[in-house]
Amino acid sequence: MASPTVLERARLLVEPAMAAAVDRLCVEVRLPLRYHFGWTEPDGSPSDAGSGKGLRPALAVLSAEAVGAPGSTAVPGAVATELVHNFSLVHDDIIDGDTIRRHRPTVWSTFGVEDAIISGDALHNLAYQVLLDDPTQQRVAAATRLATATAAMIAGQAADMAFDDMTGIDLEACLAMEADKTGALLGYSASVGAVLAGATGDHIDALEAYGRELGLAFQAVDDVLGIWGDPSVTGKAAGNDLRERKKSMPVAIVLSGHDEAAEQLRAVYGLEGDLTDADVDRATAVIEAAGGRDRTVAEARLHLDAALDSVADVGLVDTAVGELADLARFVAERDF
Amino acid sequence: MASPTVLERARLLVEPAMAAAVDRLCVEVRLPLRYHFGWTEPDGSPSDAGSGKGLRPALAVLSAEAVGAPGSTAVPGAVATELVHNFSLVHDDIIDGDTIRRHRPTVWSTFGVEDAIISGDALHNLAYQVLLDDPTQQRVAAATRLATATAAMIAGQAADMAFDDMTGIDLEACLAMEADKTGALLGYSASVGAVLAGATGDHIDALEAYGRELGLAFQAVDDVLGIWGDPSVTGKAAGNDLRERKKSMPVAIVLSGHDEAAEQLRAVYGLEGDLTDADVDRATAVIEAAGGRDRTVAEARLHLDAALDSVADVGLVDTAVGELADLARFVAERDF
Repeated sequence: MASPTVLERARLLVEPAMAAAVDRLCVEVRLPLRYHFGWTEPDGSPSDAGSGKGLRPALAVLSAEAVGAPGSTAVPGAVATELVHNFSLVHDDIIDGDTIRRHRPTVWSTFGVEDAIISGDALHNLAYQVLLDDPTQQRVAAATRLATATAAMIAGQAADMAFDDMTGIDLEACLAMEADKTGALLGYSASVGAVLAGATGDHIDALEAYGRELGLAFQAVDDVLGIWGDPSVTGKAAGNDLRERKKSMPVAIVLSGHDEAAEQLRAVYGLEGDLTDADVDRATAVIEAAGGRDRTVAEARLHLDAALDSVADVGLVDTAVGELADLARFVAERDF
Repeated sequence: MASPTVLERARLLVEPAMAAAVDRLCVEVRLPLRYHFGWTEPDGSPSDAGSGKGLRPALAVLSAEAVGAPGSTAVPGAVATELVHNFSLVHDDIIDGDTIRRHRPTVWSTFGVEDAIISGDALHNLAYQVLLDDPTQQRVAAATRLATATAAMIAGQAADMAFDDMTGIDLEACLAMEADKTGALLGYSASVGAVLAGATGDHIDALEAYGRELGLAFQAVDDVLGIWGDPSVTGKAAGNDLRERKKSMPVAIVLSGHDEAAEQLRAVYGLEGDLTDADVDRATAVIEAAGGRDRTVAEARLHLDAALDSVADVGLVDTAVGELADLARFVAERDF
């Protein structure tokens, strides 16, 4: 599927403001962060590695347009959500021990854990600075909602970490974790443009619900790609999630079964030391045979439909709703 | 010197609100954080280890009283500043590799680096939630100023880390770093009560200047204690700052000299591998003989005087100014 044009449109609107925000940071964290955003190489020379799809800025821009405001209204909110999202990536990569992101070594593996911690802290705080510099009523509302969404995101990450030490995680617990970890900030992204435009509560709620559901669809797809994704597309190692013994959606579905497949999967996850390629292949086969993959794909479709329903017939601007639908399908139907 | 009574008065006002704020966090980070605050043991059983002196809440409470408002006005600001201060402690202990704080193992050395990262993130974000939950004009102003102060604090920590890789740090660079790292948040603490009370800009500025100067005095004393402090009082290992090759104020003063003492100190800091007790003793003697200790003590007195001057004769409430002066002396004249 071709990239929805809103991604490029939002990038052109938001990236200059992102670069200006990062320029406000002290010189010590600027280099690791510019590297993280794909703007430079580790030595500071220019790079065209790129910063990822820019889903969150696109959602923010569309949420302004959906309530009849120009997309530019969303810019401070788009910047804030990108800053928080990227702070979480920089810290989560340390926590998860991930060495590769967007096809490049992660910040901690390039600049060290210490620099990655402080760089993430700087991004986190900068998000509030961007919104509170000019504390209009709308921006304060956007900052207040950011605090709530970020708290949920952090709680989701903490729950995900705690799953590592639990043997039985069911689908419900997994969905609750992913709603926090991914859904809360996508719900924020998909409504902050409307908040900044001073829209009605109903419209803000509808857009936020769309984003939350899209978050679950996105995460379901991500969880499929984390096991079956092509490393050249995902930018992560093959079978990454199983190797790290993640309790992602396909795994939680199988573990919920309390049957032979659950037993076999639990046995692989219970092995001492690093999992071999053969262990990962065996776990992959068990999950696939037990329907973990198909049911996760079905879960993605379910939440995609719920996202589309949330913004249908609630009085939002039609063209923007069409673009929100295209964007949701693009996210939820990417390469399985 | 006996503890100023405002420390206990502020603790009684602020600690219940602190506990309530931490209770809002997800269960996974609550345990490490309650441990960090000295409320529990690592297993969750009660502890009376205590949370430190509570200097920042006391400053916040006095800054409300200094403009004629009840101390309780300061509580949300006192909580926010304690949350940010403690987020920075939890993360800085990872960054600096410190294993002991307040006579107990640090969060990362008890619960692991991963849990310490996410727990710090949760505290950082909670500070904004506490202020923005009820976004009155005064609380929004307090949140906006918090974003600025926290950005400076993070920049100061990043500069401190960068000093580790530099061979020549002069006193001016060291003071600029410490003004950011310690002064900014103490300036915030010492003015946030007045901000929440809706005080005039002049009064807020005077109180903030007091806090910033107190921060430099505090840091000078801390730097002396980091080399010559009694471990049973400081709660840190003896000679800790030299062992970690910190470019603290006494060190920066000697390195600024470009003389034989600077040469000798640079030679010790340039040794391969961990420094031995003998290396630390030698560096200590060089710094003391070159006047690094005396000049740091003089620096503390200078900034203490500047702090006292800032709040004298500017129309603040006399009793509160008297308590601010007592508190400043208590901080700047603690055991050398």
